[in-house]
Amino acid sequence: MRAAHYLGDGVIAVRDVTETPPGPGEVTVAVAYTGICGTDLHVLHGAMDARVTTPAVLGHETSGRVAALGPEVSGWAVGDPVTVMPLRWCGSCPACQAGFTHVCRQLVFVGIDAPGSLQQYWNVPADLLVRLPHDVSLRAAALVEPTAVAVHDVERADLRPGESALVVGAGPVGLLVATVARGGGARVLVSEADPRRRELAADLGFDVLDPVAGDVAERVEAWTGGAGAHVAFEVSGSQPGLDDAVSALAVRGRLVLVGIHPQPRQVDVFRVFWRELTLAGARVYERADFERAVALVAAGDVPVDRLVSHVAPLESARAAFESLEAGGQVKVLVRCGSDA
Amino acid sequence: MRAAHYLGDGVIAVRDVTETPPGPGEVTVAVAYTGICGTDLHVLHGAMDARVTTPAVLGHETSGRVAALGPEVSGWAVGDPVTVMPLRWCGSCPACQAGFTHVCRQLVFVGIDAPGSLQQYWNVPADLLVRLPHDVSLRAAALVEPTAVAVHDVERADLRPGESALVVGAGPVGLLVATVARGGGARVLVSEADPRRRELAADLGFDVLDPVAGDVAERVEAWTGGAGAHVAFEVSGSQPGLDDAVSALAVRGRLVLVGIHPQPRQVDVFRVFWRELTLAGARVYERADFERAVALVAAGDVPVDRLVSHVAPLESARAAFESLEAGGQVKVLVRCGSDA
Repeated sequence: MRAAHYLGDGVIAVRDVTETPPGPGEVTVAVAYTGICGTDLHVLHGAMDARVTTPAVLGHETSGRVAALGPEVSGWAVGDPVTVMPLRWCGSCPACQAGFTHVCRQLVFVGIDAPGSLQQYWNVPADLLVRLPHDVSLRAAALVEPTAVAVHDVERADLRPGESALVVGAGPVGLLVATVARGGGARVLVSEADPRRRELAADLGFDVLDPVAGDVAERVEAWTGGAGAHVAFEVSGSQPGLDDAVSALAVRGRLVLVGIHPQPRQVDVFRVFWRELTLAGARVYERADFERAVALVAAGDVPVDRLVSHVAPLESARAAFESLEAGGQVKVLVRCGSDA
Repeated sequence: MRAAHYLGDGVIAVRDVTETPPGPGEVTVAVAYTGICGTDLHVLHGAMDARVTTPAVLGHETSGRVAALGPEVSGWAVGDPVTVMPLRWCGSCPACQAGFTHVCRQLVFVGIDAPGSLQQYWNVPADLLVRLPHDVSLRAAALVEPTAVAVHDVERADLRPGESALVVGAGPVGLLVATVARGGGARVLVSEADPRRRELAADLGFDVLDPVAGDVAERVEAWTGGAGAHVAFEVSGSQPGLDDAVSALAVRGRLVLVGIHPQPRQVDVFRVFWRELTLAGARVYERADFERAVALVAAGDVPVDRLVSHVAPLESARAAFESLEAGGQVKVLVRCGSDA
């Protein structure tokens, strides 16, 4: 079979590899689609070389069908449509013991710390599988994983119907957060400096603003009748985005930190104190978030056709990464199997 | 009668003033004790001159007795022991409309924005009064206001029995936070660089550490069996204190921001994301916090005798400020009335 290998130094190569049968407790998934995300680009740039053993098979946004069952696997049948929740936890660290397995202190993120789904056939522990409805599009189901991120983010915000939500950053995750927040009954305003991304957000029916065109807090205050936003999602990973999110919140507003900020950031702690704001970190997802994401995708609540801007065959995986890198894309999928 | 006046330029003078009868809806309180706090020192240093109209009567930590009732006041009798919740809100701003009157956008903090209790007789709106049990010590009751701050901080932490709590900073508010947290069933560790303050915290039965003597996060991890603290209270107002609080938290740990940070601070946002931490600002108190603080003081749960390190007569108000300023004091009270 064929698999895309990250070889280090920014190189992706598609090569022949020998299929191995699923081990005890494992299932072989015939991969249909694998989405590529910003984290994959980080890996490609070497930012995670300390975590990644080359040749590495990336890919953690997956749809496919069960192709074979290993020993000791029950509850699954060949042909079942599935997605994969790409987390493996230790079960014994303080985080796991406290019930927060998704932020296990020894978390294995499958697709980075263990082989991912940029290949035709993929052996994964059966307990990572998440069932898909039989009538779901596998192309759409490749968006379940980023949708689960968004569901988790909105969950961390404790968002209630009728509240106002500012989403800072309109990449794929930002747009999914906006979608899930709106689905939860919120009024949503998207702040995005890139005109193409802003236009897409507007096409999807969200209120939009250009953060560079004026004071964001003032405009959010006007948009909320003087109060400020109940909730903000910082999805840009940038200092200005963080500043905007903090300054735009109402008294007792909640900020969910979604974007990656590799270095410490300046935070207006006085504002946090004065307005009794809450800042909450949100990382990956829990099982319930994943299952809710399956339901949203299956119900057609995720605008898959607007978000998927490019689909490349597995043989062109390298070009798919380059296309994402070049900008202008929203979501890029790699078609890994004939079933797709 | 006599009143202590802040005249600007660091000057406090005790002067004769004419008593005025209570207006409609007002009560005259015969002040027994007034506590002095760090905020009062800030005012004295001119840091709040934009808010303060001189001559200003400071003082917002109060105990006393009802001395006279103005028109339209009911439910109170001369001689009733009282404390005063020194907040007045507008009722119509977005914060008030959302139910968060204690962080009203036009909040009047009585004792800064309006005359306070560093005087023998004090006219205040009757709805600011909080009833004290008849058998409570009025000296102890002067600590209700800072205790209410601590109750509010612990409330914002959503602290549960059996949890571990790190308190960064062992001034009066830090020690009260530690006291209320322990009363709520938490294990408490106090981090304080000043040896005298650290010794007092230890005498009060708290575990203590010197933040300068080694890595705080490592020691908190050891103290919690490897997990990190469930909750941290940042009461130092300093960058190192904030760093320690963030780094010492367990996965899903909650940090309550109590101390004033006048300038933006560096925050390890990646840590907040990675461990799914929550940072929450906490400002003053709500009515329920104040009433809970009355109950704690009345029950003897607040170590008043250890916290009150100096009591000065009103005529020596200036010396009382200087004594607090000089360091080495914990809580300084001014005895304002003969009833005290």
